[in-house]
Amino acid sequence: MSVFAGIDVGGTNIKVLIVSATGRVLARDSIVTRPAQGPDRALGRVADCVEALAGGRDIAAAGVGCAGLVDMRRGQLLAAPNLKRWENTPLRRIARRHLGVYTTVDNDATSAAWGEYRRGANRGRRHLVFLTLGTGVGGGVICDGSVVRGAGNFGGEVGHIAVTTDGPRCHCGSRGCLEAYVGTYGLLRRARELMAGRRSRYLSRWVDEGQRLTPRLIMDAARRGDGAGRRVAREMGEHLGVAIASLINIFNPEAVVIGGGVSGSFDLISPHIERVVARRAFTEAAKMASIESSTLGNDATAIGAAMYARDSWKNAHP
Amino acid sequence: MSVFAGIDVGGTNIKVLIVSATGRVLARDSIVTRPAQGPDRALGRVADCVEALAGGRDIAAAGVGCAGLVDMRRGQLLAAPNLKRWENTPLRRIARRHLGVYTTVDNDATSAAWGEYRRGANRGRRHLVFLTLGTGVGGGVICDGSVVRGAGNFGGEVGHIAVTTDGPRCHCGSRGCLEAYVGTYGLLRRARELMAGRRSRYLSRWVDEGQRLTPRLIMDAARRGDGAGRRVAREMGEHLGVAIASLINIFNPEAVVIGGGVSGSFDLISPHIERVVARRAFTEAAKMASIESSTLGNDATAIGAAMYARDSWKNAHP
Repeated sequence: MSVFAGIDVGGTNIKVLIVSATGRVLARDSIVTRPAQGPDRALGRVADCVEALAGGRDIAAAGVGCAGLVDMRRGQLLAAPNLKRWENTPLRRIARRHLGVYTTVDNDATSAAWGEYRRGANRGRRHLVFLTLGTGVGGGVICDGSVVRGAGNFGGEVGHIAVTTDGPRCHCGSRGCLEAYVGTYGLLRRARELMAGRRSRYLSRWVDEGQRLTPRLIMDAARRGDGAGRRVAREMGEHLGVAIASLINIFNPEAVVIGGGVSGSFDLISPHIERVVARRAFTEAAKMASIESSTLGNDATAIGAAMYARDSWKNAHP
Repeated sequence: MSVFAGIDVGGTNIKVLIVSATGRVLARDSIVTRPAQGPDRALGRVADCVEALAGGRDIAAAGVGCAGLVDMRRGQLLAAPNLKRWENTPLRRIARRHLGVYTTVDNDATSAAWGEYRRGANRGRRHLVFLTLGTGVGGGVICDGSVVRGAGNFGGEVGHIAVTTDGPRCHCGSRGCLEAYVGTYGLLRRARELMAGRRSRYLSRWVDEGQRLTPRLIMDAARRGDGAGRRVAREMGEHLGVAIASLINIFNPEAVVIGGGVSGSFDLISPHIERVVARRAFTEAAKMASIESSTLGNDATAIGAAMYARDSWKNAHP
C-alpha cells in the first residue's frame, strides 16, 4: 500500500507527515527550517526525515505546501517574506531531486484548502471557501472541485477582499482589507486602542504585569468578560462576516471553513459572523453555507499537500 | 451549416438572434414580452419569430438568457421580479416544446458573461469577470473556462460584493453593496444629493426644464463639466474600483468586462476605476487584468445564450 508525504514549509519549522492514501496521518515529525541555508540543504534534511518516518513503506508521491507566492504549474517559489533565500528557486525540482518521487509544490493556504476538501469535515464538498487567520489572512477557494488559481496563479487571495474603502492600513499596501482588521496586527492594534480607552479589566492588567499581547491573550480576556477583549472578538466576527457574505454571494459554497491561530476561540467570534452573514448575504446562498472551524487544525497544510500530491500523481499515473 | 438561436428575455422585450456557429449575428428581431401572459404564450411567439428569422436554415440548438434566478441544471426559472407569472416554471421544457430543438436556459447576466468569453473581445480568455450595470448590478465569472455557479446555482453575484460595511441601503436588503452605489437607483440618489448641494450647473437646469434624471443624463452632464455629474462619475468609478480590486485578488482574471447601460460613458469612469485598482489590488494580478467596456453591448446576453447552447449541444452530441 503506497503512502504519501506531506511537507509544510514555514519560516521557522518544517512539518513532515506520512499520510495514507485516504489521508490518515501515519507518522509525523518537525524539523527547523534554518531559512538562511536555502532550500537545497533544508530539503536534504526533509528527505532524511521522510525516509526515517516511512520506515520501509513505499512513498508514492510528496506534496510541499510553502508559505509565499508559489507558481504551482512551474513548481517555482516566487516570493516569500519569511524565506528570503528560497525566493525564485525551482522548489519542485529541488524537492524532487532529494525525495526521489513525484512531487507537487503549492502555497501553504491553498494546500490547507485542498486538505479541507479532501480530508476535513467537508470532505467531498466541491464548493468550499477556506480562510486561515494568522499574522496575515490567507485562504483558498475550491470551486466545483478545483482550486481557484486564476490566469497567473495569483488568485484565491480572499484575505484582501475589501471590508471598507478606508479603514486601517493593510500589509498589502491597501486599506480596509479583511486582513487589516482580523490579521494579528489588526487585532493587536484594535486591542491597544480599546485598552487605552480604559475599557479593559483583565487584558490591561495582564499586559501591565508583563504578558505579551497576542490574539490568544485577547481571546482569553474576552472569555473572562473583559470589555476590550469582547469588543475585539465581536468586531473580528463582524468584519469576517462582511467578507464571508461577499464570498458566499460570489461562490455559493457548501461551507466556509476557518483555520489558523484563533480556531480555538471560534465560539467567541462565530455568533457575530453568523449575524452579519444573515443580514448581508443572499438568503438562499447563506442557508447552504455552513460556517465552521477547521477540524484539521495545524495539520491542514501538510495533509492537504499530501492529498494534492496523491490526486496529481493519480492523474499522471492512471 | 447549422445555426443557433439566442433569446434574451427581459420584462419588457424579448430579443431573438440567429447566430452562426462562430457567433456571428445573421438575423435579429425583438418582440414584446407581455409578461402577464406567462411563458407558454410568449415562447410560442418566440418560436414563430425564430422560424421566420431562420429562413429555412437548420437551427441546431437554442439558448435562453432570462432575467431572474435561473436553475440552469434543472432548467427552471425560480424567481424573477419583472416576470412574476414566469416564476417557478419549467422554462427549458416549455421553450424546448415550442422550439423543437435542444435548448438551454440560464440567467441573463451569466449568459452575457459567456458571450464575452466565447465571442467578445476577450474570446478565449479562460479567466474573466463580467459586470453588467443597470437598475441592479449583475454579472458572472468565468473561472478556467467554466461559469462560477456554486453549489446551488446561486453564485456569481458580483454586484453584491461589499464596498463598505454601512453605506446606502441595497435592494438586496444589505448595505454598502456595489449595487447600492452604482446601480441606477444608487446613481440617481447620489446625483440628487449633489444637485441639492447646488454643485450642478447643467444637470439641475435640465431636470428643472422637465428632463427625466437618468444615468445617461448624469453622464451627459459630466461630459459638459457639470460638478454633480463629474462627482457621480468619479465616485462610480471609485466604487467599481474597490469591488473590482477585490475580484482581481480573488480571481486573477485576464479581463474585467463592464457592460450594461453606462458602457457609452466608460471613458468617464474608467480612469477612476484604474486608479483605485492600482492602489488596492495585488500588483501582479492587477497587471494581468485589463479593465474594459463590453464590445457586444446589448447583444451580449442573446449571443452568449446562443453560444452556451452551442457548447452544451456539442458536448451532448460529440
